[in-house]
Amino acid sequence: MYNIIQHDGSVCAANGFFADGVSAGLKKNSAKDVAFIYSEVACKIASVFTTNKMCAAPIKHFLAKGDFQTNFVLINARNANAMTGKAGVEDINEVLDALASTCQDVKNPVMSSTGVIGVRLPKQKIIEAMPLFDLSKKEPMSAASAIMTTDTFSKTIAFEVLLEDGSSFRIGAMAKGAGMINPAMATMLCFITTDADVGKEEMQEILDEVTRTTFNAISVDGDTSTNDTVMLLANGLSGAYNKNAFKETLFKVMHFLALEMVRDGEGATKLVTYNVTGAKDAKDAEIVAKALSDSLLVKTALFGQDPNWGRIASTVGASGVEAYEETLSISFNELCVYNKGELLFNEAMEEKAAEIMQLPRFSISCDLGIADGKFTAYGCDLGYEYVKINADYRT
Amino acid sequence: MYNIIQHDGSVCAANGFFADGVSAGLKKNSAKDVAFIYSEVACKIASVFTTNKMCAAPIKHFLAKGDFQTNFVLINARNANAMTGKAGVEDINEVLDALASTCQDVKNPVMSSTGVIGVRLPKQKIIEAMPLFDLSKKEPMSAASAIMTTDTFSKTIAFEVLLEDGSSFRIGAMAKGAGMINPAMATMLCFITTDADVGKEEMQEILDEVTRTTFNAISVDGDTSTNDTVMLLANGLSGAYNKNAFKETLFKVMHFLALEMVRDGEGATKLVTYNVTGAKDAKDAEIVAKALSDSLLVKTALFGQDPNWGRIASTVGASGVEAYEETLSISFNELCVYNKGELLFNEAMEEKAAEIMQLPRFSISCDLGIADGKFTAYGCDLGYEYVKINADYRT
Repeated sequence: MYNIIQHDGSVCAANGFFADGVSAGLKKNSAKDVAFIYSEVACKIASVFTTNKMCAAPIKHFLAKGDFQTNFVLINARNANAMTGKAGVEDINEVLDALASTCQDVKNPVMSSTGVIGVRLPKQKIIEAMPLFDLSKKEPMSAASAIMTTDTFSKTIAFEVLLEDGSSFRIGAMAKGAGMINPAMATMLCFITTDADVGKEEMQEILDEVTRTTFNAISVDGDTSTNDTVMLLANGLSGAYNKNAFKETLFKVMHFLALEMVRDGEGATKLVTYNVTGAKDAKDAEIVAKALSDSLLVKTALFGQDPNWGRIASTVGASGVEAYEETLSISFNELCVYNKGELLFNEAMEEKAAEIMQLPRFSISCDLGIADGKFTAYGCDLGYEYVKINADYRT
Repeated sequence: MYNIIQHDGSVCAANGFFADGVSAGLKKNSAKDVAFIYSEVACKIASVFTTNKMCAAPIKHFLAKGDFQTNFVLINARNANAMTGKAGVEDINEVLDALASTCQDVKNPVMSSTGVIGVRLPKQKIIEAMPLFDLSKKEPMSAASAIMTTDTFSKTIAFEVLLEDGSSFRIGAMAKGAGMINPAMATMLCFITTDADVGKEEMQEILDEVTRTTFNAISVDGDTSTNDTVMLLANGLSGAYNKNAFKETLFKVMHFLALEMVRDGEGATKLVTYNVTGAKDAKDAEIVAKALSDSLLVKTALFGQDPNWGRIASTVGASGVEAYEETLSISFNELCVYNKGELLFNEAMEEKAAEIMQLPRFSISCDLGIADGKFTAYGCDLGYEYVKINADYRT
C-alpha cells in the first residue's frame, strides 16, 4: 500500500521547511539557545499543550490567537516565560514585533520557551540575535541542539512516505526533554513538520490519538510542566496524502522521540517497557502502567538491579484499579516470576531475573487476568545522578 | 475542662496493657523482631487498613473475623506475609493456634506483619520464640524496637487525660515506618492502647477522622503499602471517658507519631510542612498539599536547599485543581516569594529563602486565593541516601 523510509532531514525533511539555531547569550559559553522553524508557505497547525493550570506565556499567547496559520516558530531555551503573568505575554508580542521588522517574510509567528520558571523573558538578548536568522538555512541539527536544556543528546527523526500512486510526503521532527521523569524545568517540546496535504481537523484528531500512546505514555509522574508542547505544522507542498500512512508515520516519529526522551532521562541508565494486559479496560491498564513507571520504589529497585517483584505487585494494588492477587501474573522479559497466586521465586530464578535487570533495556509485564484492557508505558530508573541534577538545577 | 499530660508508658501507659519484644531470628544479629501487646481484659478494636488491593494476609485474616474483641496482638518485622495467598492466611492460623497452646490467657489474638513481600512467613521461627513471651512484662520500648524495619529510631508516645470530675484515662501508642516516602517495604504500622471507656462505634468514627489529618497527611506518594495498619485497642479499665478529650488526645498521639515518621523518612534531612489555604474546598487543598509533598522535583529542590518556587507553582498547576497564576501566593515560612501574579523574587530574597531552606524544619505555604479550603501535609526531602536505601533494600 505504501512504504515508509527513514530520512535524515529532521524538521527540514519536508519540502519548504527551513530551520537553524543561533546563540543569543542565554546559555553559557555561547552555546546555541534560540532556534527557528520557517516554512516558505503558511502552515496549518495542530497542537497539544500542557494541562498545567499555570501554563506558560507562549501557550497563552498561542491560544489567544484563535484559528490561524503560521510560517514561523521561534523557540528559546533557558527561560520558560512561565508565572510571568500579562507581562510575559507582552514580552512575546514585543519580541515577535521586532521579528516582523527584521524578517519581512515572517507571517503570524508563534513562540515556544523552555527553562527556568518565574523569571521575565530576556527579550533584549533574543531581539539582538535576530539578525543572525537566515531563513534559507536548512540546519535542523543546529536547531535541535539550541532547544536542549538538561538533554544530553539532541533528538530528531524524519521519514518519507511513498504512496501507491507514486506520490510522496515527508514528516520530520525535533524534540527536547530529558525524559519520563518529566521535570517541570525540562519541559517536553516537540516540533513536527510535514508537507503532506492533510486537513487541519483530521491532523488534530490524529495528533491527539497518537499523543496518548507516545508522549503521554512517558509522561508519568504527574508533574506536567508549565510549557509542554507538541506542535505539528503542515504546509501541504507535496500535494500527497493518505490517512493510514500519515498516522502510522506520525506514530513512528513520535514513538521514537518519546523513547529517546526516556533513554535520556535525567541520570537514567535503563529504559523499561511496562506492558500491562488483562485489565478491566484500557483506562485501568493505563493507570497501572503509569503507576509502575512512576513509582519511586520501582524506579530505585531498577537502579539497584534488584528483581523486587513484590514492589511491582504492591504498586499494582495501590494504583486503585480492579486487581486480584489470585489472577495477577508478573514477568521480567519472558521470565514469569509470579503466576496467579503462585510464588515461583527462588534463588535460581532470582539470578536469572537479576541478569535481565542488568540489561540497558528490558520489559516488565503485568497481566491482571481480568479482561482484555491493555496499555504500554515507558520508564527509566532513578539513581544518584537524578538527585544531583535536580537538587541543584538552577545553579 | 480537662488536662492532657504527657506520660512515658507508651503502649503500656493505659491500665491493664502489657508489651514486650523478643528475638525470633528473623532479623540479623539477634535483634528483636517479634513484639506483642497484651491486655488483661478483652479490648474493643477500631482499625484503619491499607486500601491496597494486594492487602497482606494479616489484614485478610483480621477482616475475615468480623465483629470481635481481642486481648493480644502479635507483630513481626522482616516479613510482610503479603502476596502469599491462602497459604499466608493458613500460616497465621497455625501461628496463632500455637500461641493459644503456649499462652493460655490469650483470647482471639490477631497478627500484624511488616517486611519483604512475596515470601512465606517463617512461622516455625516465630512459634519457637513464643516461650519467650512473658505476659506480665511492661517493656514498651522493647516492643517498639522489635517492629522497626528501616526506621532509625523507635516511635512511641503516651498521654494521661485528667477530667473535671477527677477521673482519668490514658492513651499510648507505638508506630513504625520510615516516613512519608512510604515505601511498600517499610509499611506504616501503629498500635494504640487506651483504658478509656469508649464505645466501639464512636472510637472507629474518631479514628477515621483523626487518621485523615495525621497519617493520611503524610502518606503522599500513592504507594500505599500492602500492610499499612492503624489499630486502636480499648479495654475500658479506667471507667473514664470524655469525647472531646479523647479526640484531642488521640490527635496529639497520632500527629506526633506521623511527624516522627516523616522526620525518620528514608534519607530525609528536612521536615517540611505544606500549608495550603484559599482552595475551592478542603478536598482541593488536600490534593495540592499532597501533590507538593509528593513531587520529586520539590523534594530534590528541598534536598538541594534551592528556593525554587517555580517548581512549587508548577506542581500546584499540575495537580489538576482550580488554580490561577493571578491569585496564587507562595511563602517559605513568613517570607512571601510570589504574590498574586507579582514576581517578588530577587537576589536579596533568594538569599533569605535559601537560609530558611537550610533549617531542619520549615513550612511552605500556598494560598490559592479562591475560597477557604485548607489542608496541611507533611513531607521531607529526597537525597542520595533514599536512593541508596531503596536501590538495595532486600540485601
